[in-house]
Amino acid sequence: MAKSARVVPQDSLHRMVREIFAAAGCSVEHAGIVADVLLWANLRGVDSHGVVRVPRYIEMFKSGEAKARPEIKIDRPRLAALVVNADSAPGPVALQSAMTAAIEAAQFAGVAWAAVRGTVHTGAIGYYAELAAKQGLIGVGIVAGVPNMAYHGARGAAVATSPLAIAVPGQSRGTILLDMATATIALGKIAQHKIKGLPLPEGAALDSDGLPTIDPGKAVTPLPMGGAKGSGLSLMFELMTSVLVSNAIVAPFHAKAPGGRKHRQNAAMLAIDIAAFGDLNGFKSAVDATVGAIKVMPAATDNAEVLLPGERGARTFEQRMREGIPIPPKTWEALAEAAQAVGVTVDA
Amino acid sequence: MAKSARVVPQDSLHRMVREIFAAAGCSVEHAGIVADVLLWANLRGVDSHGVVRVPRYIEMFKSGEAKARPEIKIDRPRLAALVVNADSAPGPVALQSAMTAAIEAAQFAGVAWAAVRGTVHTGAIGYYAELAAKQGLIGVGIVAGVPNMAYHGARGAAVATSPLAIAVPGQSRGTILLDMATATIALGKIAQHKIKGLPLPEGAALDSDGLPTIDPGKAVTPLPMGGAKGSGLSLMFELMTSVLVSNAIVAPFHAKAPGGRKHRQNAAMLAIDIAAFGDLNGFKSAVDATVGAIKVMPAATDNAEVLLPGERGARTFEQRMREGIPIPPKTWEALAEAAQAVGVTVDA
Repeated sequence: MAKSARVVPQDSLHRMVREIFAAAGCSVEHAGIVADVLLWANLRGVDSHGVVRVPRYIEMFKSGEAKARPEIKIDRPRLAALVVNADSAPGPVALQSAMTAAIEAAQFAGVAWAAVRGTVHTGAIGYYAELAAKQGLIGVGIVAGVPNMAYHGARGAAVATSPLAIAVPGQSRGTILLDMATATIALGKIAQHKIKGLPLPEGAALDSDGLPTIDPGKAVTPLPMGGAKGSGLSLMFELMTSVLVSNAIVAPFHAKAPGGRKHRQNAAMLAIDIAAFGDLNGFKSAVDATVGAIKVMPAATDNAEVLLPGERGARTFEQRMREGIPIPPKTWEALAEAAQAVGVTVDA
Repeated sequence: MAKSARVVPQDSLHRMVREIFAAAGCSVEHAGIVADVLLWANLRGVDSHGVVRVPRYIEMFKSGEAKARPEIKIDRPRLAALVVNADSAPGPVALQSAMTAAIEAAQFAGVAWAAVRGTVHTGAIGYYAELAAKQGLIGVGIVAGVPNMAYHGARGAAVATSPLAIAVPGQSRGTILLDMATATIALGKIAQHKIKGLPLPEGAALDSDGLPTIDPGKAVTPLPMGGAKGSGLSLMFELMTSVLVSNAIVAPFHAKAPGGRKHRQNAAMLAIDIAAFGDLNGFKSAVDATVGAIKVMPAATDNAEVLLPGERGARTFEQRMREGIPIPPKTWEALAEAAQAVGVTVDA
């Protein structure tokens, strides 16, 4: 990049994002939640899911795809089953509500499943899974969205790159956090290969004709992880989230129904109360022993390190909390523009 | 193969397996369940998880690794949380009990999680997930076992090829069933490549030194699906099953603890009652519409077909129900030997 990234302290970036969302019409509480979730992604190095998304949320408030003042309604039809009618709330607001409700229900019933109906861009869903882990529960999250990934054996976009996150609390190891998409390669990574002029790995993406390509300039559709496994998982997530709450995405998309291509997401949050099954501290110690056994294994290549799920992100988090978050010039400009549009002044 | 496979009608194979397990000490009910689960795998074409496993179960009854007359104890510490103490029951007996209990609890609480402690060889876990789907619930199953797969970036066996199954009921489409291991390639498939003299795909397995190989004769450890994703999932499954019920497998395995390499498995079954979230028939129709939209997509290659999760298995099931199950000579001999050892006569 010609210009170097600006490094912004996390607290001032958090304030800026919070102020933008409040000025765009969100409540102070909701603006804070959105800032928490986006900053968390940046702090962990998942910049594709961080503040770079701010302008798009503001755009969605204007277009009506999202609501700044949603009326979120949480039903609990059964003791361990919840439905969060998100009313087009920003994903962070909807999913934080859902996981919070799931945790509370699980602390009573042992386990709870919160189905989220009708939200937009959920951000990095590891955040919500970690919420559960921090309170001594196992947290699981899945999301379904508008098709942007190939289905194994078919041409073109068929299903979404729907993510899965699982968080488990350890003792001294902190939270063990797996946060993965069902695609072989992220759309953001294809863009990075294009900027750097590097070819894609074989079997990672399709071009606009639905044929395999390693040219990042032609790649438009990522292929599923593990072939039939990745696209099978994504399809099952659509059935377990969107179809379960009568808000299908995949079927109307392919039927070319009105609004079928409009951005929207559904999700589910599962909380499992460890204390229902045994002693929480014993569990955490056994988690440490298990991941510790993996950590000390010989590495596959010299000078490499065996990494636990979420370990790299946790390290980046510590570093960026201390040193600030690097924001590329283009992202900063778009953020400043979004701020100005809603009347928020930006520090130079 | 020099000798061709013998084709056995499913009902007479079922009777033979049932009689072997009953003669080996199982109750008539348990023998029937084991036969159901093993035959189901054969009928669906997953022969690696079918009757080929019979001799090993009998061996485990003798060695004490498994119990023919287990005292299974099901606790329900909370409304939606169950613990199935399997007492070294054969996996089919333990997991059928667990899913049955989870379904019943979910029909009340909306959702239920049954943790299974201390079983052996669970068979093809799609069977248990399908049990839920047949009763109008979403069924999910995961299993953890003794390490036989690599962890991304590490040498040698670190975690297990732990499977995940998800079953969702459709209307005219029947059950949509995803049943996948977390490995790139099954151990059984490596063996097939060896028999056929075919090289393995790149990145599928490690040799006994923990280094990558495409020689099926040298391959001993399958690599995880999608690199860090597959081994991350497997590790999380160990934490969510074995560690949750204080019966860790991975940690004692690596600590070279006494019995650390002994065959044993833990599992979890999740049931989600669709009726808690909406109308079951509406759900099933929407499942049909969703998978129907995928089915009619253009195939990636000419003369190919876009397949749904479990579709190939369902077709093989219909065919083998009609035409019988092909049993290779070696498998038949081992089965006949196992039968004779417990005093069961085999039809010629």
